[in-house]
Amino acid sequence: MSACTDDERVARAGLLLAGEPGDPVTARAVRAGGALDCWDRLLRAGTQAPSAEPLPDPAAVLAQQSQRGARLVCPGDDEWPERLGDLDALSGPDALPAPLGLWVRGPLDLAGVLGRSAAVVGSRAASSYGLHVAGELGLGLAEAEWTVVSGAALGIDGAAHRGSLVGSGATIAVLAGGIDVPYPRAHTALLERVAAEGLVVSEAPPAGLPLRRRFLVRNRLIAALSSGTVVVEAGVRSGALSTGRHARRLGRAVMAVPGPVTSGLSAGCHLLLRQWPEAALVTTAAEVVEAAGPMGALAPLPLAASHPRDGVSGVVERLLDALPVRASLPTSVLAGRVGLPTQNVESLLEPLLANGLVERRADGWRIIGLGRQPTARPLDRSAAGG
Amino acid sequence: MSACTDDERVARAGLLLAGEPGDPVTARAVRAGGALDCWDRLLRAGTQAPSAEPLPDPAAVLAQQSQRGARLVCPGDDEWPERLGDLDALSGPDALPAPLGLWVRGPLDLAGVLGRSAAVVGSRAASSYGLHVAGELGLGLAEAEWTVVSGAALGIDGAAHRGSLVGSGATIAVLAGGIDVPYPRAHTALLERVAAEGLVVSEAPPAGLPLRRRFLVRNRLIAALSSGTVVVEAGVRSGALSTGRHARRLGRAVMAVPGPVTSGLSAGCHLLLRQWPEAALVTTAAEVVEAAGPMGALAPLPLAASHPRDGVSGVVERLLDALPVRASLPTSVLAGRVGLPTQNVESLLEPLLANGLVERRADGWRIIGLGRQPTARPLDRSAAGG
Repeated sequence: MSACTDDERVARAGLLLAGEPGDPVTARAVRAGGALDCWDRLLRAGTQAPSAEPLPDPAAVLAQQSQRGARLVCPGDDEWPERLGDLDALSGPDALPAPLGLWVRGPLDLAGVLGRSAAVVGSRAASSYGLHVAGELGLGLAEAEWTVVSGAALGIDGAAHRGSLVGSGATIAVLAGGIDVPYPRAHTALLERVAAEGLVVSEAPPAGLPLRRRFLVRNRLIAALSSGTVVVEAGVRSGALSTGRHARRLGRAVMAVPGPVTSGLSAGCHLLLRQWPEAALVTTAAEVVEAAGPMGALAPLPLAASHPRDGVSGVVERLLDALPVRASLPTSVLAGRVGLPTQNVESLLEPLLANGLVERRADGWRIIGLGRQPTARPLDRSAAGG
Repeated sequence: MSACTDDERVARAGLLLAGEPGDPVTARAVRAGGALDCWDRLLRAGTQAPSAEPLPDPAAVLAQQSQRGARLVCPGDDEWPERLGDLDALSGPDALPAPLGLWVRGPLDLAGVLGRSAAVVGSRAASSYGLHVAGELGLGLAEAEWTVVSGAALGIDGAAHRGSLVGSGATIAVLAGGIDVPYPRAHTALLERVAAEGLVVSEAPPAGLPLRRRFLVRNRLIAALSSGTVVVEAGVRSGALSTGRHARRLGRAVMAVPGPVTSGLSAGCHLLLRQWPEAALVTTAAEVVEAAGPMGALAPLPLAASHPRDGVSGVVERLLDALPVRASLPTSVLAGRVGLPTQNVESLLEPLLANGLVERRADGWRIIGLGRQPTARPLDRSAAGG
């Protein structure tokens, strides 16, 4: 793609200022004739039949945004995320085009930090469990040097951004309104911090209001910008599921965090995991990286504490089973029970004694402590046999 | 299969009394030469070289069990669950054969109640969440006229049996020890009730001790008897996972209940769901029936409360978005915003007023109440578009 010229950027700014985010008609016109031609025709039409509202002055807005440390990132810029083009490959009634450009505030390179990125989204009315998990995922992703993309909403979104910031990670807030319109108000300070350390991004014009419709249109951007989308907590009606749907249609990794089946806030996550065969159940940031990252980024398996009875031979297993818990048995009886000479049983008992699994008493041997515990093996260790 | 004769039953009882549950050598000998021949040879060998322990008298044990209301169910009996034969089709080091017979106490027909059955298993050290879910699943399965199979252990097993009993369902306790050995002791009353209303089943001889080794061998029976196995709560080392592994190898449905990712007691469930592509995440008894039942027993989708904004047309959606929350706007301005004649906007506003989504004020219209809430749709309703 050729570099974006100044004229092209002004034209795209004008179209973004005059239009509505995600408008498919403008996008089609731009794909067909180019942004310059499209904006030019809009200007001419405005001169011929002046509407109630005059057309915006995109050059002035660009200059003003530049003074405020913001920019319009356009196709052809180094910073433009090429993966947004995936949006234009979709069809169907719900398909919305790639944005004509993105208003961006913040010190990071947009395309640069999206290579390893996960959208972490969920309900505004989250539970303390959901907030905890979102924060942990944000922090864990930051520690893995993954970017956390979210929508800056109350609840899960905010917790994910905060977790990333705590881990000094890159985090991107994608807004439904303008990049200079703090919404929700309660997140004004959070958004300032994201703009100072990460990126605040929007397709809506500066000063644009966070209209309800724009949230749904914005959700496609969260999905399209990220390598994968994790739904942390969502009721079955949650808007977070729409982000998951977009991610799925775009061929991005779709993930969900499970929760109590008694919690309606996890019902959307469970529904997603049940209905979408490609959706991955994730419980840690490492598992998110495994699902959304390049092949081979395997998460460590959950570790079971190693157990003194692990790996004991069949005959030791039989011996341990033959040992009583309360009473005790002499070596000769034990030998009969396991079908071995008394001498062999004695040599088996010694290391068990040293490891604290058995106890020697006046009248014989009994099993103690960890010797009594079961040793069912984790799935991973018996996969070969199962 | 021909009916089991009295002689055959005595022989199988003798082999079960003399041997160890799941012993592959005896099973192979029985498959090759029949139980009568196998028992006969054991009797002759006993006469030639009398061991310390004399061979049991199976006819006497059968008579005694019959007096106590128990029976030995054998292949060829109407009550014999043919599906146990699936065990003999497995190979590999972990494969254990079908039992030679099953000691059974209780008023139900074993094969009859297994047609629609689910094993509900999990940790002994369960959380209150796990106990609650196990009880709800037991009750829900009972209400769906499904049999609950479990191991009568403390924790999840006991809660599942109790839930089934509360729902007047059929429940089967499969024990590692003898059917007349109440284990765990704390479940003595529970096991009496299961024997009175459901079935207590074991491969171990009457009075046989619940040896540790027998639990793992017993787990294969729980899996093989049931149409599917649900793991409700399990650490990554839990024995409940071994039951799930057996179910998987037998081609039975394998299911797990998710839980908080912060709970080690759900970690085994999540591991199972992540590692086994065929495992189903289940949250309700209806979903267990869907996964383990015949094709077509679909669980109802979780219901989202219907919303007044559901299904409104695009133009009404635009109109609602154009309406302010605090101030109000006259019809003429709204008409300009949505691009419709004033008259059409008025006809759209009337039903919204009637449904309490908008309010008419002296200076125009504003949006109120549920009109303001989002309408993100549950996954099921937008599947066609997604």
